[in-house]
Amino acid sequence: MTIHILGSGSATPTVTRNPTAQLLEVSGRYFLIDCGESCQISLLRKKIPLLKINHIFISHLHGDHWLGLPGLISSMHLAGRKLPLKLFCPAGMEQILQTIFSHSETQLQFEIEFSFHHPTEKKVIWENADLEIFSFPLAHRIPCHGFLFNEKKRLRNIRREAIEVYNIPVEELINLKLGKDWLHPDGRIIDNRLLTKDPKPSSSYAYCSDTEFAPHLASYFPEVSVLYHEATFTEELIERAKLTYHSTAYQAAEIAYLAGAKKLLIGHFSSRYKDLNPFLLESQKKFANTCLVFDGFSLDF
Amino acid sequence: MTIHILGSGSATPTVTRNPTAQLLEVSGRYFLIDCGESCQISLLRKKIPLLKINHIFISHLHGDHWLGLPGLISSMHLAGRKLPLKLFCPAGMEQILQTIFSHSETQLQFEIEFSFHHPTEKKVIWENADLEIFSFPLAHRIPCHGFLFNEKKRLRNIRREAIEVYNIPVEELINLKLGKDWLHPDGRIIDNRLLTKDPKPSSSYAYCSDTEFAPHLASYFPEVSVLYHEATFTEELIERAKLTYHSTAYQAAEIAYLAGAKKLLIGHFSSRYKDLNPFLLESQKKFANTCLVFDGFSLDF
Repeated sequence: MTIHILGSGSATPTVTRNPTAQLLEVSGRYFLIDCGESCQISLLRKKIPLLKINHIFISHLHGDHWLGLPGLISSMHLAGRKLPLKLFCPAGMEQILQTIFSHSETQLQFEIEFSFHHPTEKKVIWENADLEIFSFPLAHRIPCHGFLFNEKKRLRNIRREAIEVYNIPVEELINLKLGKDWLHPDGRIIDNRLLTKDPKPSSSYAYCSDTEFAPHLASYFPEVSVLYHEATFTEELIERAKLTYHSTAYQAAEIAYLAGAKKLLIGHFSSRYKDLNPFLLESQKKFANTCLVFDGFSLDF
Repeated sequence: MTIHILGSGSATPTVTRNPTAQLLEVSGRYFLIDCGESCQISLLRKKIPLLKINHIFISHLHGDHWLGLPGLISSMHLAGRKLPLKLFCPAGMEQILQTIFSHSETQLQFEIEFSFHHPTEKKVIWENADLEIFSFPLAHRIPCHGFLFNEKKRLRNIRREAIEVYNIPVEELINLKLGKDWLHPDGRIIDNRLLTKDPKPSSSYAYCSDTEFAPHLASYFPEVSVLYHEATFTEELIERAKLTYHSTAYQAAEIAYLAGAKKLLIGHFSSRYKDLNPFLLESQKKFANTCLVFDGFSLDF
């Protein structure tokens, strides 16, 4: 997986921090997570072909998380897109887009397949052989959802040389890949670890923005490889965080700690902060493996 | 007057050309003309305080001319704006903003005073002692309007030394400023030009985007100081220009020529063009005083 941060700001953008947008790359597929204003420009800067994005996930209907979407859809239309676009979003998104495109008299040449978030439960919203994607409710001023991208457990890798030594028939290989031992015709049991190697470990990515501090969220993404959690404020402004249903850097770290995450990314910084080091120091007090994100930041994991 | 170009691109933005937005500064007032996506970021870059913008003019409801507006309004709200905001726009803009802000549960702390364009006539839409602003219909795929900003004719400047020589009473000065001669108590008529100096010439700015080539437009802004006219294509793509209700650089120049404009600015370049010199060369064949605009361009006049 590779996560690209297209916007690391919050409600009010700054000259260096666009509103929220992220792109998750998994085995050549592009998943766009939120789409704040200027998102399509950031995609151009990253040289991501717009038409390779087939799945878009919108957390909630505050403008700083979706106002780049109508422009992006319009650019896809003008670029000749024909393939359907899957849009995972709150139900109101459909009415908003219909209103906008009816006034511009735009007849999109492709279909938008809407899928609306379940209000209260963690749900699988998309999957294929390698990946499953969940949405789960966050705790914000208006309905808001996080997302979990989970690579499915990979099959074990066959040791070709061992297969030849034991002369194992092809139809048995799937059982070996699934981790089973092999019963030799002479009665011996051959340990699977002699016949296969560990697969590349599976990765997972959880996205939590926007939300107030809510410890139960950690149960939605146990032992996640990388957690992105919003950190709009530092602890000095914890009252403001409560009032606006946002989190502090320390609270983001607590969620990462509770979830047993391997790494924490924090972003969605309020425009009032110029120096972001206090966010990092605060978060690392509770969770050492924290990383601040910025516009243009990318991470492979 | 000073015009600041915040976005010089057309429907599909590029990494160097944002969608259309311009800011006209007249004697310390800021008039925002169209508000494409990323407009508020461009305003931040230009260090224009958002709260000093009290008048916004939206030409039409294609997204590349207004998608920056909800974010800008939201940032004004978060910055504590209380003053009403005047919005000159197509009627549909009100429904769009209501839909967007109802889904985000945003209760703006200030009023938006909507003023909808007259569909077919040139109309004064705002004025004060120094300036009058007109809207006029353009010729585009959907209803679209241009704007003319006209500084009113200034009063003549009194020559203090002449006033003393002739001992002219204070209450007569307004007549002199209006250009009248003075009748001396001894019966002589004193030529106004001996008593006053020419005022600074008045400036005017006309904005035409988006529109197909329509020669009658020139009559809306005779002898304008600076005309901005869209030039989405060069003449090679004149058929595409017709089909999409846009203009070529040469057609923009023809309008400037017909209007007797003093200077022509062209922009709204299609994203297919990397090199813009052909636009300039084409326009200058008909109208020598043409200037290409770019994001960040400013001109005093």
